[in-house]
Amino acid sequence: WIMSLRTILSYIKKETKSLCVLNACSLNSATTWGHRYNFNLNQFSKRCYNTTRETQFKQLLVNSYGEPEEVVSLNVMTLPDIIKGTEVFARVLAAPVNPADINTIQGTYAYKPQFPFVPGNEGVLEVLEVGENVKELKKGDRIIPKLNALGTFRSALVAEEKDFIKIPSDIDPILASTIAVNPCTAYRMIKDYVPLQDGDVIIQNLANSAVGQAVIQIAADKGIKTINIVRPRPDLDKLKDFLESLGATLVIPLPDMRKNKDLLNELPKPRLGFNGVSGKDAAELIRMIEVGGTVVTYGGMARQPLFVPVGELIFRDIIFRGYWMTRWNLQHKDDPERITMLDYLFDLVRRGKFVPPPHELVPIEDFKTALRLAMPAKGMTNRKQILVFN
Amino acid sequence: WIMSLRTILSYIKKETKSLCVLNACSLNSATTWGHRYNFNLNQFSKRCYNTTRETQFKQLLVNSYGEPEEVVSLNVMTLPDIIKGTEVFARVLAAPVNPADINTIQGTYAYKPQFPFVPGNEGVLEVLEVGENVKELKKGDRIIPKLNALGTFRSALVAEEKDFIKIPSDIDPILASTIAVNPCTAYRMIKDYVPLQDGDVIIQNLANSAVGQAVIQIAADKGIKTINIVRPRPDLDKLKDFLESLGATLVIPLPDMRKNKDLLNELPKPRLGFNGVSGKDAAELIRMIEVGGTVVTYGGMARQPLFVPVGELIFRDIIFRGYWMTRWNLQHKDDPERITMLDYLFDLVRRGKFVPPPHELVPIEDFKTALRLAMPAKGMTNRKQILVFN
Repeated sequence: WIMSLRTILSYIKKETKSLCVLNACSLNSATTWGHRYNFNLNQFSKRCYNTTRETQFKQLLVNSYGEPEEVVSLNVMTLPDIIKGTEVFARVLAAPVNPADINTIQGTYAYKPQFPFVPGNEGVLEVLEVGENVKELKKGDRIIPKLNALGTFRSALVAEEKDFIKIPSDIDPILASTIAVNPCTAYRMIKDYVPLQDGDVIIQNLANSAVGQAVIQIAADKGIKTINIVRPRPDLDKLKDFLESLGATLVIPLPDMRKNKDLLNELPKPRLGFNGVSGKDAAELIRMIEVGGTVVTYGGMARQPLFVPVGELIFRDIIFRGYWMTRWNLQHKDDPERITMLDYLFDLVRRGKFVPPPHELVPIEDFKTALRLAMPAKGMTNRKQILVFN
Repeated sequence: WIMSLRTILSYIKKETKSLCVLNACSLNSATTWGHRYNFNLNQFSKRCYNTTRETQFKQLLVNSYGEPEEVVSLNVMTLPDIIKGTEVFARVLAAPVNPADINTIQGTYAYKPQFPFVPGNEGVLEVLEVGENVKELKKGDRIIPKLNALGTFRSALVAEEKDFIKIPSDIDPILASTIAVNPCTAYRMIKDYVPLQDGDVIIQNLANSAVGQAVIQIAADKGIKTINIVRPRPDLDKLKDFLESLGATLVIPLPDMRKNKDLLNELPKPRLGFNGVSGKDAAELIRMIEVGGTVVTYGGMARQPLFVPVGELIFRDIIFRGYWMTRWNLQHKDDPERITMLDYLFDLVRRGKFVPPPHELVPIEDFKTALRLAMPAKGMTNRKQILVFN
């Protein structure tokens, strides 16, 4: 199934046209968000919305492409009074800042929204009110956006029911807010390219990224071993312990790959590799792949093209592909497979086999800090920045 | 179906073990080969072999890796007296020198034979004598090697019947000698990666190579259009005329790709691209491929890795694969599909829709000239060098 980029983008536009860009104004709630992971959003939600309709909300707005700290502003806008027909009025509980959000603001992403736009592709929302023709959703339901570019960096929004997927309410919303992009990317890359069995091996670089951590945990749950390439760093042992606690089979810094030949030779050669780095450094990962295997690229942290030695293509028959969650979502918008995937991930969470990446909760007012710390190139110890709203 | 390189190489070794390395000595025939394409090999064959068994033959030998002119020598060896069991005794009519032969001699090819070895992967032979247990082949049959590394750069050889494929005798042997590698590569790349229909488009670089010319002719026969990227050169118009005479839809030198946007936009976007160049220059070809399309690499004329922009993988879903005729032959050694492919190509020849690349016939004694002119890096106007034997 092949779709031109133009078609993909026109789909995105069509799907997001139904969104009302909200007029919201400052809530000035006396309640402030705790920065701790276990802050009880349910209680907060009840406290704020049980009696009266809030009409003023906050949103981030982008008026031109550029560095996030310079081009993003916090706005106060008013919400429409009446929720009509198939519309859903929902408040955003938490919205993580992903590299794709940064790149969208910078204007370097494949999807280039028109100005002004509210950034934010991912997040967990709670339904506060539904229109008379809304069928599946009701007040109190937790929902996530069905497609990217919904603009989740705002405290509430009104959109069509069909723009959302309902998720279970027993899952911590902070954790749930980070499920739709990175863990789903990991899940699909493990499932869709090479049929793997118990005992098979996946090799990946950028193993410490949110996708990398999700790969480790999902693979471990499926009995698949992982070779995890990381960048050298002073606290390597700590990182190693952490990734091994998630289920990593081997964690090796890039320059030591050849030194660890014996360890690597004890494992079957991987038929599947995940590349989030690209550039020249990916050659070390490619070299490890079994003849006829596949390398799936989902990122370019090195800010260089992927250098593919010609012999790896011709003589070793390695297949190079790319993965983009946005495309998969577009192609599988209403596919039950999507629910199957989310159910599996939530079940993994319930079984205690999936934890979100280390993160920080940042109130929307501190958005500049969140955007700065979410910049991919600004160091290796970044915690995932998750915006919360009050 | 996945085969490790080690297994592939061990297959090659196993398959070639059955070959006798012949003792041949100088024939010193008074007849010398014409350099013209239409030299009548059939008549020559009858003149030499109709009554007495020749026992002395010439072969090229490689004793160490290095530059062909330095490490290849012409040897004279004697043939075994009796052809036994399932053996076939055949003389080589013509053997083209391909880039892979040069790289094998240089020691830079994926297949590294043990010293001393007779180079030459391709060629057409004529059966002179068969062992008592040979079933399908008989005196006078034309044959080609079933696998690479048979060592065709010698005037005759003895090998097992199972090492050969019989080809029709009505096809000019010089033309037939160039069928098994380059046109078969073109045929498989057109057939095996993306299902194409009448009116679809293929884009390729290195369009003037033997593979490129075969792509143009086979595609034209199948109603598929071709965009052909060539290197700029003084005699561009001549080359353009030549490739268009073969059936090329568009012939554009690399730096003019963007200048020819209008011409290119008139065609459907290609879903399949063939890359024989790699390096940075292949980016221009990749850029032209439709979202979800495939780029098949069969060469690295630029002597650089293939530079793949990360966005082409992630956002445009382009798939990058490699093609190696040697692997396909190993995987389809006795597959009827192989005969189907050769039958199609010979039929194309008979219909006047396939001509071999411009070439020169070189007597084995002038092997140094042939090897020098066959070096891929030595300029753009090389004619295919085809060794002939007397």
